Amino acid sequence: MSEAPALSTIGVYTSGGDSPGMNAAVRAVVRTAHHLQLKVFGIFRGYSGMIAGEIKPMERRSVSNIVQQGGTIIKTSRSAEYFTAEGRRQAYEHIRAHGIEGLICIGGDGSFRGAVAFHNEFKIPLVGVPGTIDNDLYGTDFTIGYDTAVATALESIDKIRDTAQSHDRMFLVEVMGREAGFIGLASGIAGGAEEILIPETRTDLEAICHRLEQRTHRHKTSLIMVVSEGDEAGGAVEIGEKLRARTGMDFRVCILGHTQRGGSPTAADRLLASRLGYEAVRALAGGRANVMVGEVNGEIVYTPLEETYARKKPLASGLVEMAAILAE
Amino acid sequence: MSEAPALSTIGVYTSGGDSPGMNAAVRAVVRTAHHLQLKVFGIFRGYSGMIAGEIKPMERRSVSNIVQQGGTIIKTSRSAEYFTAEGRRQAYEHIRAHGIEGLICIGGDGSFRGAVAFHNEFKIPLVGVPGTIDNDLYGTDFTIGYDTAVATALESIDKIRDTAQSHDRMFLVEVMGREAGFIGLASGIAGGAEEILIPETRTDLEAICHRLEQRTHRHKTSLIMVVSEGDEAGGAVEIGEKLRARTGMDFRVCILGHTQRGGSPTAADRLLASRLGYEAVRALAGGRANVMVGEVNGEIVYTPLEETYARKKPLASGLVEMAAILAE
Amino acid sequence: MSEAPALSTIGVYTSGGDSPGMNAAVRAVVRTAHHLQLKVFGIFRGYSGMIAGEIKPMERRSVSNIVQQGGTIIKTSRSAEYFTAEGRRQAYEHIRAHGIEGLICIGGDGSFRGAVAFHNEFKIPLVGVPGTIDNDLYGTDFTIGYDTAVATALESIDKIRDTAQSHDRMFLVEVMGREAGFIGLASGIAGGAEEILIPETRTDLEAICHRLEQRTHRHKTSLIMVVSEGDEAGGAVEIGEKLRARTGMDFRVCILGHTQRGGSPTAADRLLASRLGYEAVRALAGGRANVMVGEVNGEIVYTPLEETYARKKPLASGLVEMAAILAE
Amino acid sequence: MSEAPALSTIGVYTSGGDSPGMNAAVRAVVRTAHHLQLKVFGIFRGYSGMIAGEIKPMERRSVSNIVQQGGTIIKTSRSAEYFTAEGRRQAYEHIRAHGIEGLICIGGDGSFRGAVAFHNEFKIPLVGVPGTIDNDLYGTDFTIGYDTAVATALESIDKIRDTAQSHDRMFLVEVMGREAGFIGLASGIAGGAEEILIPETRTDLEAICHRLEQRTHRHKTSLIMVVSEGDEAGGAVEIGEKLRARTGMDFRVCILGHTQRGGSPTAADRLLASRLGYEAVRALAGGRANVMVGEVNGEIVYTPLEETYARKKPLASGLVEMAAILAE
Repeated sequence: MSEAPALSTIGVYTSGGDSPGMNAAVRAVVRTAHHLQLKVFGIFRGYSGMIAGEIKPMERRSVSNIVQQGGTIIKTSRSAEYFTAEGRRQAYEHIRAHGIEGLICIGGDGSFRGAVAFHNEFKIPLVGVPGTIDNDLYGTDFTIGYDTAVATALESIDKIRDTAQSHDRMFLVEVMGREAGFIGLASGIAGGAEEILIPETRTDLEAICHRLEQRTHRHKTSLIMVVSEGDEAGGAVEIGEKLRARTGMDFRVCILGHTQRGGSPTAADRLLASRLGYEAVRALAGGRANVMVGEVNGEIVYTPLEETYARKKPLASGLVEMAAILAE
Repeated sequence: MSEAPALSTIGVYTSGGDSPGMNAAVRAVVRTAHHLQLKVFGIFRGYSGMIAGEIKPMERRSVSNIVQQGGTIIKTSRSAEYFTAEGRRQAYEHIRAHGIEGLICIGGDGSFRGAVAFHNEFKIPLVGVPGTIDNDLYGTDFTIGYDTAVATALESIDKIRDTAQSHDRMFLVEVMGREAGFIGLASGIAGGAEEILIPETRTDLEAICHRLEQRTHRHKTSLIMVVSEGDEAGGAVEIGEKLRARTGMDFRVCILGHTQRGGSPTAADRLLASRLGYEAVRALAGGRANVMVGEVNGEIVYTPLEETYARKKPLASGLVEMAAILAE
Repeated sequence: MSEAPALSTIGVYTSGGDSPGMNAAVRAVVRTAHHLQLKVFGIFRGYSGMIAGEIKPMERRSVSNIVQQGGTIIKTSRSAEYFTAEGRRQAYEHIRAHGIEGLICIGGDGSFRGAVAFHNEFKIPLVGVPGTIDNDLYGTDFTIGYDTAVATALESIDKIRDTAQSHDRMFLVEVMGREAGFIGLASGIAGGAEEILIPETRTDLEAICHRLEQRTHRHKTSLIMVVSEGDEAGGAVEIGEKLRARTGMDFRVCILGHTQRGGSPTAADRLLASRLGYEAVRALAGGRANVMVGEVNGEIVYTPLEETYARKKPLASGLVEMAAILAE
Repeated sequence: MSEAPALSTIGVYTSGGDSPGMNAAVRAVVRTAHHLQLKVFGIFRGYSGMIAGEIKPMERRSVSNIVQQGGTIIKTSRSAEYFTAEGRRQAYEHIRAHGIEGLICIGGDGSFRGAVAFHNEFKIPLVGVPGTIDNDLYGTDFTIGYDTAVATALESIDKIRDTAQSHDRMFLVEVMGREAGFIGLASGIAGGAEEILIPETRTDLEAICHRLEQRTHRHKTSLIMVVSEGDEAGGAVEIGEKLRARTGMDFRVCILGHTQRGGSPTAADRLLASRLGYEAVRALAGGRANVMVGEVNGEIVYTPLEETYARKKPLASGLVEMAAILAE
């Protein structure tokens, strides 16, 4: 890292839904900036704090002992105001007043859309770091927080399995993921779920009912069905009602909810967050702008921010078929 | 343990909602029975299996490696049929056909009610072991599964705290416990909840709204409110709507649900289950009947089964007031 | 809590080996002090910081979000200097200079010995809070940190069980506890250990060898032996060598070590710490001095500090015998 | 999967050190075999059981509820006898007697060496599945068990961090990995370790001492140094003594040991194990032999068994330098 940095002062913020590992990314950004002798500011509460001027210098020690903490110490928010030209203008005033010449945005697609608008208007270089549990950004194999969210969902599925088996009961477990089925597919396979319902595949309730009846004939009456919140057939409550109406069977519903956003990040998330935070600062210092830094096949890649949300990241193929075979 | 046992063959079953530690109790019952040279049968799926004759001998090795498993390997159920005289008669036929002279019932109040009916009709000695996450049985400081349920609820609360603080959000977290606030109070205090709503204390929504507004003035806008499912003001969804209507503030709701029933039991639950399972067999062998074995102040006590559900176990006093002071 | 406090300014410190839950106790002390309108100082790094004058005011917010953290944010140490009259005199100067009229010491027996010396010399009221993983203080059923240490030891034992069974191997697992066998006994029973070696019972290596050979005849060749570090027959390494020499069998040794001191405290430890921290301030404000506040049979009790280490807290009787029967 | 399988009966065994996820792999093998209408035998205790004829048919239900269990239900061993021609001949007799036409070996390099010898002598098709916590096999990005071992090591490091910071102490934490530094590097970065000592990089004790002294000047006296067991400068005990001798500073040593082999596998390990077990059967049915099935950049690849241990899998480059920068 010998080339002279393209700038001397940067700002970092977290934005949108929080995800485990954001703190590890913030730590990496701050420490790497200091290593490169850049001044680094924390912009608190995402775009809301950018508009309100909640901006503080970050020292090396200010990110001590956070690598293992869930959430984000510089806080996050969803800002409606930022989606007005006036909001962004105020934000820019604060950025300029602090001498910030480049930005690092840790967040998901909504945050990146905001970043693109900002970049287009004010030409301030910005590098994105993919921080969302949903894993729905193109340009990186995994987003920061995804592995932890899967781990949390899986822990819950394992627990529900205990009670499902003890009672010979059927459970529908709804996991997060918005429009994407990554969390559902991974936690479903790892949890040995008998059915996995995700937005990427068409959910055929008739076929499910048929399999349910076959299972009943074989006296397999305990079952876990993982439902991604974005499934086109509905959420777990709605699907449960439909299945009940068709089969007369009884289903319990668990919606795992916000627990999936929190918790100490897994090793994989801390590693990914450390690496992407580190590379984001290097990219910014090296003159890159308007890209997201991601990891694809173990290598660092840079993807134009617009592509990260405009292009659809596919699920690994074949896994849904495999899951069905392994759960037989 | 030198006295000659009052009987030579016993049966053990788990009944009602499963709770973590039931397996440790089953293991203790089986191993202690063998130590006392009693023959021991597992009656599967609680009263349903008793009626259907699903009864199998349990050897020492059949309970190997289960002390750490959630759920119950001999399964459980809620049986409507058992609450008919004909159902109980059929159950008794199977008990007699296997030569079972005494029963150990691991379960909660519903299971004990069934046990009392059975005992009254057929005079078969029965000892109860308190297995329920709700901790709502009189005659024991703690029930088997309660400590694990609190641990699970607490883990979730800790995770929700991460996201609540990152977003300055307010969360209502609904925990289990049926008519009792034990899980709510313990997980609320341990999780540092700002408000704890339990059935044992009157929930004053006006006062809560007042405190919410005071907190907002002090810019403390992140908050966790733990709501016991049995609170007289409603569940978390209902209370959230009421608070929203009164304050105009926004609340997220998490219902922790069935995850609280599963999972590997904590050390405390395994110890309690081991001890109570062990003492239940000794009590039965020693001629006791129609009692629940419990632990009070570290000592083994026997309480008539009817009292365990007829009498109300009080919460520790002063803790609600303390919780409010510590969360200030 | 209506009576006028006996003092207006207090100090709190943690001392000796850290234990999970100390932070929850510090939080309770600080919040309760503010509630009683007492000024409260944190004395950092225990007696070392008292001597060096590392003393800072603690506000309500300075203990936010620590209830779930392991370790102690006000740090701890073992101070040799404090055991000199000159060291204690310096410490007293700092205490007086800050206007501190009463002290709360969170720690174990070594810390309480130091506290007694201090009290005798300078007559400053002091209340002890039992914070040690070893559970070896008289006057409280449990010490803060003990439940978490058992949980950590148990998690490790569960993991070792996986590999022991997969390989049909024999493991000696050494757990902490100094001169006391509380951690060993609880984690051993909960982990289903085949042998539990604790200082409170005589360890008969001949008898163990005999049982090992019997087990081998029954083809039970996987085994967990929990060894308390203070066992009179030696640590796990030494005992492993002795058993190897006598039986020719092979043993693996795991020393769980310092992991047992850390980690997020369990619900039980957070509750206990909250309650004892709260009661310690109330006791001090109410005029008590030179006592430890403990919980016995669910009730708050005060024990003269000297008794807490001079008297031996017994293990629950019968559990060792039970453990042997359940592991058969 | 429409082509006619190249064989009709297969056997599966686990061998060498157990690793979390082996059960998920066994489940996938058995379920996939049944799906392809292959008969499948479990060969118990690895090569030892192959020699002794401990071979049993595996039904779909025999692998129910194991996806989440650590260890291996078909057990494992290290067999010296197998490394004799006579041992292998006996093994082959049993294989032939059961009509087994193809083998799936789940294990590490030692197991694969044995498999190659067997294949060379008896020409029986064999597919390897990489099961070892060490991640030291060429031909797969990750081995089954590695992610869980890192998670376990990380949990311990997090706990030790609590006590290190509370006491301002320096800890050397020794992690597993044999000749490879994968576990050390990943857990070290994720745990925020100040120093990471791995076999792949030269350990410069002089430079470490120099940095230790610099840290002391900056009053950063709490430190975690992760030491891979295979580091060329020695294990943690030896390195601790050397550092103590040179600096006069005090170091605590924790050897994490066998806990790293056990525990419920992470989602990543269950997914990998499911996929590789599934693909191994398909490969065998499709006529492949003498290869290991691995996952590289998300794709399934087949590597000749000899290459998996003869070629050295490199660490990701740049991470060691990054770790140093982030820990500054």
